[in-house]
Amino acid sequence: MTEAEARERAAAMLADAGIVVTPAEREAIEVADFGLGRLEEIGLEIVVYVNTERVCAKELVLLPGQTCPEHRHPPVGGSPGKEETFRCRNGTVHLHVAGRGELVLQPGDQCTIPPDTLHWFRAGDEGAIVSEFSTQSRDEADVFTDPRIVR
Amino acid sequence: MTEAEARERAAAMLADAGIVVTPAEREAIEVADFGLGRLEEIGLEIVVYVNTERVCAKELVLLPGQTCPEHRHPPVGGSPGKEETFRCRNGTVHLHVAGRGELVLQPGDQCTIPPDTLHWFRAGDEGAIVSEFSTQSRDEADVFTDPRIVR
Repeated sequence: MTEAEARERAAAMLADAGIVVTPAEREAIEVADFGLGRLEEIGLEIVVYVNTERVCAKELVLLPGQTCPEHRHPPVGGSPGKEETFRCRNGTVHLHVAGRGELVLQPGDQCTIPPDTLHWFRAGDEGAIVSEFSTQSRDEADVFTDPRIVR
Repeated sequence: MTEAEARERAAAMLADAGIVVTPAEREAIEVADFGLGRLEEIGLEIVVYVNTERVCAKELVLLPGQTCPEHRHPPVGGSPGKEETFRCRNGTVHLHVAGRGELVLQPGDQCTIPPDTLHWFRAGDEGAIVSEFSTQSRDEADVFTDPRIVR
């Protein structure tokens, strides 16, 4: 699957879920393959709504079976690190959080992940759309467990 | 309109928009009449998804023609005050922000309101659903222009 195909599929999933994005946002959907080149298995499609110094909100789209690999958000420059709440909007997401095991999130279910806590997640067979509400996002500060990953 | 009726109508609007809330969230929808007892004109229905020390996310539901009256979020205890991003999900919202006049938000449109900035908003004839992404919410700190308002 190419990056453009993943973007197209993510946009179609958002539209099917009734989540409106502007044409500019659609064009700007970030397709993350984490430097592994295995987008069908490991990847994430992201619409960033806002990312200020204080607040960030995104829509995360996982294609069917796609996994966002294990990582954490460490303290950065005096801040305790990114705090995230994941709220499942569509489909099913299997969320793994250090110390809490696997949480299966269906639409309406959510989970808040404290800073610097290892987590990873995978979509079920129909894919998933997850709203992320968080403090400022600084992807370059994320620490992935797999040393081959480049974010 | 009673508080229970407003809650019922808000829940129906969320369902029509494909926004899933849990039964507990549905029961807990906050109906704000701002102490004015004129819910049909001045009011707001609120689903709070998360409100930590750092991040808050809500769904704001405005029934057709309903207005959330002018207010600002002043600095509180060392924090610069609440920063809010409003993203229209459904319907039309007329947002008035001090120094910027009226912004008409359709689905997919959004606006970030800096701390301590006067603003108010009103739904169009079909009502509106607005996602709010913000710093911590402390409603009791809000300052309303109309001195009769009790939050």
